[in-house]
Amino acid sequence: MVAEEIKALAFDVFGTVVDWRATIIEEGARFSAGTGVSLDWGQFADAWRGRYRPSMDRVMRGELPWMTIDELHRLALDEVLREFDLESLTEGQRAGLNRIWHRLRPWPDAVPGLTRLRARYVLATLSNGNVALLVDLAKYARLPWDCVLSAELARAYKPDPAVYRMACALLDLRPAQVMMVAARQDDLRAARAEGLRTAFIPRPLEHGPDAASDPTPDAACDVVAADLVDLARRLGA
Amino acid sequence: MVAEEIKALAFDVFGTVVDWRATIIEEGARFSAGTGVSLDWGQFADAWRGRYRPSMDRVMRGELPWMTIDELHRLALDEVLREFDLESLTEGQRAGLNRIWHRLRPWPDAVPGLTRLRARYVLATLSNGNVALLVDLAKYARLPWDCVLSAELARAYKPDPAVYRMACALLDLRPAQVMMVAARQDDLRAARAEGLRTAFIPRPLEHGPDAASDPTPDAACDVVAADLVDLARRLGA
Repeated sequence: MVAEEIKALAFDVFGTVVDWRATIIEEGARFSAGTGVSLDWGQFADAWRGRYRPSMDRVMRGELPWMTIDELHRLALDEVLREFDLESLTEGQRAGLNRIWHRLRPWPDAVPGLTRLRARYVLATLSNGNVALLVDLAKYARLPWDCVLSAELARAYKPDPAVYRMACALLDLRPAQVMMVAARQDDLRAARAEGLRTAFIPRPLEHGPDAASDPTPDAACDVVAADLVDLARRLGA
Repeated sequence: MVAEEIKALAFDVFGTVVDWRATIIEEGARFSAGTGVSLDWGQFADAWRGRYRPSMDRVMRGELPWMTIDELHRLALDEVLREFDLESLTEGQRAGLNRIWHRLRPWPDAVPGLTRLRARYVLATLSNGNVALLVDLAKYARLPWDCVLSAELARAYKPDPAVYRMACALLDLRPAQVMMVAARQDDLRAARAEGLRTAFIPRPLEHGPDAASDPTPDAACDVVAADLVDLARRLGA
């Protein structure tokens, strides 16, 4: 089995480990209760997250200077607030909303699954989120990482090959000793192209109960697991 | 008190958190028992460690290309083995000895002190050790870091200012919100010059019971603590 050779697991975080959409809806409802601002927070979350990939692409094309995900989230937030006619929000309220990304709640299987996996493997994040965000998130959600690795350290966003190479170099492992774990197949495809092993965790609810999702796993994945507890079982941890 | 403003503690590791000398002596004795190679491992440890600072200085002066501490430890090991007339050691034995640095044992106060501190602060390493080494060490010694930061990420060795700046940037904190914790005053002086807070932990036994040590703390330190449990107490954690 592939598990024998693997030394470290590198995790995508937003969507794979934490449920960003449900957290934004929940925190948004609290914001509405406190401010009287009424809003469809599901639509808002989708609009906000919808700007995530395009904003990283702009950085990678050189149309924006290097910016962290905290900065890109804020840029997107200001745009979405305009779109939703909420320009009256104060600087403090905007900064507060942007910090929701630092306290996303984990999927129910995440902490038990990671805890089992950690007994056998080195667990690293490999997220486009910046280091400070990932550290806050881990502390908040008690995610038991051995190591916080971020696209920020490579100054390139996944799926850029530089990010996967950086992770292997810093862990001092051959690509075949590292398994990328993600709910997004483009992330896994890019990791595979660099020689990493791949585990697909479908998260059909990531974009909400009504969203179309395509959880059909790429046949090239080494492992497909229902969640992180199932991944631990499949990897003998 | 200064503790109010501090958000993160950045730790020197070799000497401050782990007892490299006693571990090398202990592991060396095991090596001797297994191989019949007889040796004064205290002297050997001192000779090996003695090449640490000069080798980093050679990298920083550009006389050596960038090399990780694992690579510099190995370079120094080969030299010290020549010095001790132990050139007959095999590649496997050399690689094995070099890995001792991945499983150094913590000072007795380290894990309890860090565990208390972690409840209140973000705990990061800020070591010249490379990421892979620090990750192995943390796993082996159960050091509860929130984040593994290393000189490797700045491609510069402490006390180069770039290392301290990199740590603040990645943690997204102002220098005054970060406290450097170290047993070496040159490390703390360099951190202070960048605006970080400083805590001095004298480790009079770092170089063995017979070594001269100068634990007189620089008056500019924000905190002087007997060990990491004492640091937790002084920082209200």
